[in-house]
Amino acid sequence: MRLSELSTESGVPIATIKFYLREGLLEPGAPVTARQSDYDDSHLRRLRLVRAMQQIGGMSIDQVRNVLFAAGESTLSRHERLGVAQYMLPPLVEAPTDDPLWDQTHGEVLALMTELGWLINDFSPSLNALTRSIVALRRLGYRDGIEHVRRYAAAMHPLAEGEYRFIDGHRDLDEAIEATVAYTVLYEPILLAVRRLAHEDVSARLHNRRPISPLDGV
Amino acid sequence: MRLSELSTESGVPIATIKFYLREGLLEPGAPVTARQSDYDDSHLRRLRLVRAMQQIGGMSIDQVRNVLFAAGESTLSRHERLGVAQYMLPPLVEAPTDDPLWDQTHGEVLALMTELGWLINDFSPSLNALTRSIVALRRLGYRDGIEHVRRYAAAMHPLAEGEYRFIDGHRDLDEAIEATVAYTVLYEPILLAVRRLAHEDVSARLHNRRPISPLDGV
Repeated sequence: MRLSELSTESGVPIATIKFYLREGLLEPGAPVTARQSDYDDSHLRRLRLVRAMQQIGGMSIDQVRNVLFAAGESTLSRHERLGVAQYMLPPLVEAPTDDPLWDQTHGEVLALMTELGWLINDFSPSLNALTRSIVALRRLGYRDGIEHVRRYAAAMHPLAEGEYRFIDGHRDLDEAIEATVAYTVLYEPILLAVRRLAHEDVSARLHNRRPISPLDGV
Repeated sequence: MRLSELSTESGVPIATIKFYLREGLLEPGAPVTARQSDYDDSHLRRLRLVRAMQQIGGMSIDQVRNVLFAAGESTLSRHERLGVAQYMLPPLVEAPTDDPLWDQTHGEVLALMTELGWLINDFSPSLNALTRSIVALRRLGYRDGIEHVRRYAAAMHPLAEGEYRFIDGHRDLDEAIEATVAYTVLYEPILLAVRRLAHEDVSARLHNRRPISPLDGV
């Protein structure tokens, strides 16, 4: 298809597509004439993925580029490339220097991983994300952070197994990387929305009525 | 405690605290002299909550204000106020006009809620968040969105029950509202981090080795 059709199909303006091409976020189409190229479904998919990372994942262009480039690094094994794709997705949380509560909590998080028997790198970015939230909860006076992680771990691991097998089941590495990103960026909001809806349902049941009534201005 | 102590305890600069006071995000302290006020633990907690909403929840000052003000609306019942606090938290996703795939998917999401027997308002913002991600997945060619929601629902509902009972167990309404926000803003990153770590563990197991090796520059 032509650039204009790619734009219509994807809903992405032509100027934006040209920007992605210049930035290397989208592979060039096959040249047809000196001024025209031909695009196929792989371009359409990539375009939708980039848009999803930006609009749903809230990622900057730089973050999108980093994920796509790292995942495309051909000196790494398939396994490593899938790992890098996940590691580069936000949030990337830096450990503070000189915060004893952080250090203690981070140690407890690592100890929990060992206890669970999970094969996790010490430098996995998610460990810092976990630590940051638990530290913030502790500073607010909520003490059950680690216990809660244990409950989430028990609920999430069986699901993660199915998800990862689906991702890894893609023969084509580019498709597997796309699936990694899609399954992270797009299933995360789904998981959170389901959790909020579950809270709403529990609230409605506990208060023995339908949930909050239509409110003006909300 | 004095303003300077409040700043030291919370790690929030004095100028920022003064800004929060002007914006009404923090209640004034008890006047001691014409130029000095006394702050207590409730100020410290509120300050930490506002910071957590901004820094971990990624919320703007306007969003923080909306949540706190809506939750403080005293003409609403306790149940409604807890609901409003959750409803005002981002992401707030608008339904597009004129997108048949959106309409169809939104219908399927509502049908699933009915099938699950969940007591959910038709206008609950999480329904739009769900719909948006499933639409994006479908446009990328992934067809199992609704099935996945069903699996997440089964995993999340028992956890949500414990969480909501904890929130609702706070006698003091302000504390319950704070718990709603804290449990949403701070437990969401925890849940997502646990899910990513579970993926990493499954990946390491499937590839029969420890996960990705230390990479320069990652």
